Amino acid sequence: MTRRHALREFARFAAASPLLALPPQANPAKLEEMINVFDFDPIAKSKLAKPNYEYVTGGSWDEWTLKRNRTEFDKIILLPRFMRRVDKLDLSITLFGEKLDMPILVAPTGTHTMVHPDGELATVRGAGAAGAAMVVSTSSSYPLAKIAAEANRPLWFQLYTGPDLDGTRDRVENARALGCKAICLTVDAPYHAPRERDARNNLVRTFGEAKAGPRRRRYSEEAATSPFGLPMRFQATLDWSFVDQLCAYAKLPVLLKGILTPEDAVLAAQHGAAGVIVSNHGGRYLDGAPSTIEMLPSIVDAVEGRIPVLIDSGFRRGTDILKALAIGATAVLVGRPPLWGLGAFGQDGVQRVMEILRNELAWAMGLAGRSTIASLDRTLLRY
Amino acid sequence: MTRRHALREFARFAAASPLLALPPQANPAKLEEMINVFDFDPIAKSKLAKPNYEYVTGGSWDEWTLKRNRTEFDKIILLPRFMRRVDKLDLSITLFGEKLDMPILVAPTGTHTMVHPDGELATVRGAGAAGAAMVVSTSSSYPLAKIAAEANRPLWFQLYTGPDLDGTRDRVENARALGCKAICLTVDAPYHAPRERDARNNLVRTFGEAKAGPRRRRYSEEAATSPFGLPMRFQATLDWSFVDQLCAYAKLPVLLKGILTPEDAVLAAQHGAAGVIVSNHGGRYLDGAPSTIEMLPSIVDAVEGRIPVLIDSGFRRGTDILKALAIGATAVLVGRPPLWGLGAFGQDGVQRVMEILRNELAWAMGLAGRSTIASLDRTLLRY
Amino acid sequence: MTRRHALREFARFAAASPLLALPPQANPAKLEEMINVFDFDPIAKSKLAKPNYEYVTGGSWDEWTLKRNRTEFDKIILLPRFMRRVDKLDLSITLFGEKLDMPILVAPTGTHTMVHPDGELATVRGAGAAGAAMVVSTSSSYPLAKIAAEANRPLWFQLYTGPDLDGTRDRVENARALGCKAICLTVDAPYHAPRERDARNNLVRTFGEAKAGPRRRRYSEEAATSPFGLPMRFQATLDWSFVDQLCAYAKLPVLLKGILTPEDAVLAAQHGAAGVIVSNHGGRYLDGAPSTIEMLPSIVDAVEGRIPVLIDSGFRRGTDILKALAIGATAVLVGRPPLWGLGAFGQDGVQRVMEILRNELAWAMGLAGRSTIASLDRTLLRY
Amino acid sequence: MTRRHALREFARFAAASPLLALPPQANPAKLEEMINVFDFDPIAKSKLAKPNYEYVTGGSWDEWTLKRNRTEFDKIILLPRFMRRVDKLDLSITLFGEKLDMPILVAPTGTHTMVHPDGELATVRGAGAAGAAMVVSTSSSYPLAKIAAEANRPLWFQLYTGPDLDGTRDRVENARALGCKAICLTVDAPYHAPRERDARNNLVRTFGEAKAGPRRRRYSEEAATSPFGLPMRFQATLDWSFVDQLCAYAKLPVLLKGILTPEDAVLAAQHGAAGVIVSNHGGRYLDGAPSTIEMLPSIVDAVEGRIPVLIDSGFRRGTDILKALAIGATAVLVGRPPLWGLGAFGQDGVQRVMEILRNELAWAMGLAGRSTIASLDRTLLRY
Repeated sequence: MTRRHALREFARFAAASPLLALPPQANPAKLEEMINVFDFDPIAKSKLAKPNYEYVTGGSWDEWTLKRNRTEFDKIILLPRFMRRVDKLDLSITLFGEKLDMPILVAPTGTHTMVHPDGELATVRGAGAAGAAMVVSTSSSYPLAKIAAEANRPLWFQLYTGPDLDGTRDRVENARALGCKAICLTVDAPYHAPRERDARNNLVRTFGEAKAGPRRRRYSEEAATSPFGLPMRFQATLDWSFVDQLCAYAKLPVLLKGILTPEDAVLAAQHGAAGVIVSNHGGRYLDGAPSTIEMLPSIVDAVEGRIPVLIDSGFRRGTDILKALAIGATAVLVGRPPLWGLGAFGQDGVQRVMEILRNELAWAMGLAGRSTIASLDRTLLRY
Repeated sequence: MTRRHALREFARFAAASPLLALPPQANPAKLEEMINVFDFDPIAKSKLAKPNYEYVTGGSWDEWTLKRNRTEFDKIILLPRFMRRVDKLDLSITLFGEKLDMPILVAPTGTHTMVHPDGELATVRGAGAAGAAMVVSTSSSYPLAKIAAEANRPLWFQLYTGPDLDGTRDRVENARALGCKAICLTVDAPYHAPRERDARNNLVRTFGEAKAGPRRRRYSEEAATSPFGLPMRFQATLDWSFVDQLCAYAKLPVLLKGILTPEDAVLAAQHGAAGVIVSNHGGRYLDGAPSTIEMLPSIVDAVEGRIPVLIDSGFRRGTDILKALAIGATAVLVGRPPLWGLGAFGQDGVQRVMEILRNELAWAMGLAGRSTIASLDRTLLRY
Repeated sequence: MTRRHALREFARFAAASPLLALPPQANPAKLEEMINVFDFDPIAKSKLAKPNYEYVTGGSWDEWTLKRNRTEFDKIILLPRFMRRVDKLDLSITLFGEKLDMPILVAPTGTHTMVHPDGELATVRGAGAAGAAMVVSTSSSYPLAKIAAEANRPLWFQLYTGPDLDGTRDRVENARALGCKAICLTVDAPYHAPRERDARNNLVRTFGEAKAGPRRRRYSEEAATSPFGLPMRFQATLDWSFVDQLCAYAKLPVLLKGILTPEDAVLAAQHGAAGVIVSNHGGRYLDGAPSTIEMLPSIVDAVEGRIPVLIDSGFRRGTDILKALAIGATAVLVGRPPLWGLGAFGQDGVQRVMEILRNELAWAMGLAGRSTIASLDRTLLRY
Repeated sequence: MTRRHALREFARFAAASPLLALPPQANPAKLEEMINVFDFDPIAKSKLAKPNYEYVTGGSWDEWTLKRNRTEFDKIILLPRFMRRVDKLDLSITLFGEKLDMPILVAPTGTHTMVHPDGELATVRGAGAAGAAMVVSTSSSYPLAKIAAEANRPLWFQLYTGPDLDGTRDRVENARALGCKAICLTVDAPYHAPRERDARNNLVRTFGEAKAGPRRRRYSEEAATSPFGLPMRFQATLDWSFVDQLCAYAKLPVLLKGILTPEDAVLAAQHGAAGVIVSNHGGRYLDGAPSTIEMLPSIVDAVEGRIPVLIDSGFRRGTDILKALAIGATAVLVGRPPLWGLGAFGQDGVQRVMEILRNELAWAMGLAGRSTIASLDRTLLRY
């Protein structure tokens, strides 16, 4: 009998025996006890149904990229400098002609009602209270108009195309009409994601809605017309000419989200994109793709400052953000942390998550001897 | 009392005490719940006697090479490209003048009746239903003729020589007569394998049969005439002149299976081999040998396209296969996965395993921006 | 039910059930049973309140730098040489014109009464009995005059500035008047430390005192006038001109403690510092900063012998100290080890800790074929 | 309550409660069930008092070098070649004009009666039965004459000097008179070893005897006249002139055992040594020293074939031995494995251990395509 087996048997025994009735749960955690972003994760987990929690937190296939998103930060060391005045810290940046209070945005993630009934309405209020801009997903639970009505900071719109390209254009124009400041076209999802947790949880994620269904059986069969029964998206049919068209009609800065190579970043600039977001979709699409922080230097170098380079995937600490900014990113987006905040405490949780990240960034800058975002460069780093 | 000790004691206690009688097993797993290839492993384990399961799954000595076969894939990163049409995916290849629906074959493994009573008959039916070619082992449980009668895809024949070289030639000619399309001569097994699990399980593996016996006691003594009591095979007496002879009389493409160095790959081409299979025998022979995926680049480079380079050992995910193909392999063979499928669900399990691998490969190609096998190259990879 | 969950449930069960009443504690450990410095840690832990123990032992944020302080020593290998007389070993050094019996000093740490009621009085007696010099913190629990009265080895004074720069000068002059031999200005703490353990323990650490308070709630809010609610120190307003002033009026050697880059070490020498202490504050300030042992070679090389380079952070073994001295450090400071000794056994514990480190250093030198500190150089090392 | 704590509590609970009385031990293990060298370790452990077992198995300080002795083998990969006749394998070598059946010797270790009452008498009989030469320690439990009387293979004599250099010469001449074929002077032990397990076990190891005593209290104080209370050996006073003298009067090949640098290996040759044994004393002296297998290449290169280079420390598998021989070692010594064999099964255990290592080496050579020791070179290796 192996150790693993013994433990498993113990667990089954513990679950089955009345002798092992457990004492009642400790008092639930409170918002004011949250010290860092990780603290929100187990609270959210305890409040959410397993399929919903795992939808938010899981990655694709073996979750190798998901893990690498965290471990690669450890390979970058911060070199603090001292005896420099750091009593005044300024986190603001200017992006597409607009001032942002801090270089941290809420990344686009779908269907926030899976996590909290107020969904994106709570998220946008919480983010705004903390001073953070937000990118709203095409797959939002609430209409963009309703979300925009609650926003007090810049909103951007994340775009998935559907089979109807005219409908896509309508979507973009609607976003612009509602005051969105930029369009983020997701480029890394030509097929739906191979997320096995969702399959095991019988969770079907489709455009703009989440529902339970008989997915486990051949979870790749839903798109019967696709090759090999794969769950293809319409985006599989797009090429760079679509970027040309979108940039032409959007009348807003268009960013390509999901870029992972210097080559695609240069192509993005050549095809009119106003920026790129280096992203592996939070480890949720091609497992085996690199972490974004390891690709960032070569992408920044290739783009040569022609367009801003933003980044997401795996950022959990102010020091993570500091590293990306020092490499040359203009801003950082965070996806799961505000969802943990939302799931754990609703709007207040989102606000606190964004404040913690902002304060950690400021704190790390102060301890490293840097007062402004513009002063950050690669002399701060050691590999 | 150490922690390990405490756990061991707990395990023994749990096994001995009637108080700890466990609730009945959950319902057995079903084929439609299998999401990936790993899922089949514990099912097969639960259905097989321990010696049989460990014979299939174990490796040699410390199983260092067995583990390295998995970990080395993690050192290769996939660099996806986007905004390329990927709605049509084609996995077919042409090999020795014949079209294969996919670049994944069932590797030769012996004695499938150790795993399922239908043995290779079930395997070849399942593989065929998924569109996969199969390599039948010299040590198959059923006669090649019976297996060939069930095949609807190309069969190849794996060759071990015996002490009777004329018999070897008969075997090759029989395979050709039965329609086999290629001969794979295994070159890495001049002695039987130092697999300690088999010794501990008193399992004797000999030519074409498996039976329990008093093997534990001096498990190297069975071949009394060998040096140091080692279990020598007749193959220990062969040299390259045998390859010359075999290639001369086979009248079929001859592949050498077990090649691990650029030097031997070049020698194989010089001695008339039609291809090589880079293999460490699934970590089952010389422990301390490299993983195959780490040797593949230098072997492909050395061969310079003169003959196709195939590969096996440790492939479990479509992304693993994608990495090998991008390095330059023509096709990939998988050994344990179809055996897990066979042990878990018989013919249907084999079919599902091969379909999963095929679909994962296609899915990974789509997410990486590649539509055909021919389009795969090393620009997809980062080390 | 996962394994982790099963274990957690077991723990709760064990805590709740009277059946699991444990046998009485074994006899308490004795000083003469302490073999190495690590042995003191669990004894101190068992005797201290959790907030106090964690204050001493914890690091900042994810404690990454705290861990790296230990792991980087493992990357340096010692190359012993033999057939050299080593029956006479001499550990003494001369620093700022004064002979020290050994190149190991007690590092400045604050508020020793958190660990033992006799505080720094016990520490200085214990250190002196072992022959070690000590650096007294600005935040000491007892007045410097009282501590100095107990010292029989050189004392140095660690300096934090307060908002009143005149008061700072008074502090320095007082130290000189009381016989301190050097001033160590801490440069790496412009803000208070992001130590989450302290926040969770509701521990407030301010200048010279420790008290419990409602810190958990927004633990960054205590300094309301700081940017982003960060706990700023007056030191955030200082720049190199303060070093110029301090060196001018101190009339003692001034060392800058907290230097982590060659650039700052060179600046220190240029601004009149008599030495630098390479330190990351024991992993207690900027998490993500490098270990000191990995930065030491480049700092020693940059300073080119103009001023002595001392080092602290993570030293626990005589071999750790040997590595730093061989790289080129003049002396090593240890912070937590004497505090463990103090917490575990008071003055005698401090003495024994310092003796153990001294003896281990001598022993390692003897086994490596080196008899004097001056004979240590980088030929002893392999990376 | 942490997981570790829960487990510890469980262990104490399990030990204290009559409910948890365990079923009787399984039948004791038998010699014929031993498959590899590791198998003997737990058997020996179960039969020996803890201080004795830990004396044999433990290392110095943090046992870092002890662990590195194993892990560094993993960085060397074996590159097997095929289609080479390997049906005849020859392990014999010629060393100092004498033929040895295999390039594996029993390393000198002290006081075998700590492990088995028959001590070195059983060891030398078992080694001889397997065809292995043995190096007898100065600290043997039985007189060299008695051991020599049982030997049927070459014996070498390991030399420690005592304070009486004339006595040392007598010892050497006695060894020669008793037929020893070489002298191995241990050079890496100028002080006794910092082995904390022995200190915690109150074990005193002195010249030629082992007894329990009050060692825990200041375990470094036993040699009161040494610097810093360290347990100095007379060898601390020696230098290279002693090697000159020893080589002059020994009239036997003199090997220096404990060499870890190319520089000392070259000095050894220059001072008349007939060979060196690269050794870190099994990780039992300077912790932080390198593994021997990582230093071997540079030592072999520096010696340039002038004298043979032997090696020990951490060899447990035939493949470990194969790696050292391929780098350029002439032979390998093994210390703990025969002691495990002796402790577990007496003379028969020693024999079986040495046979297993011999057979594994032969088996690995066969599987790698090498038939003789002379054919081994660095083309077999990949780093």
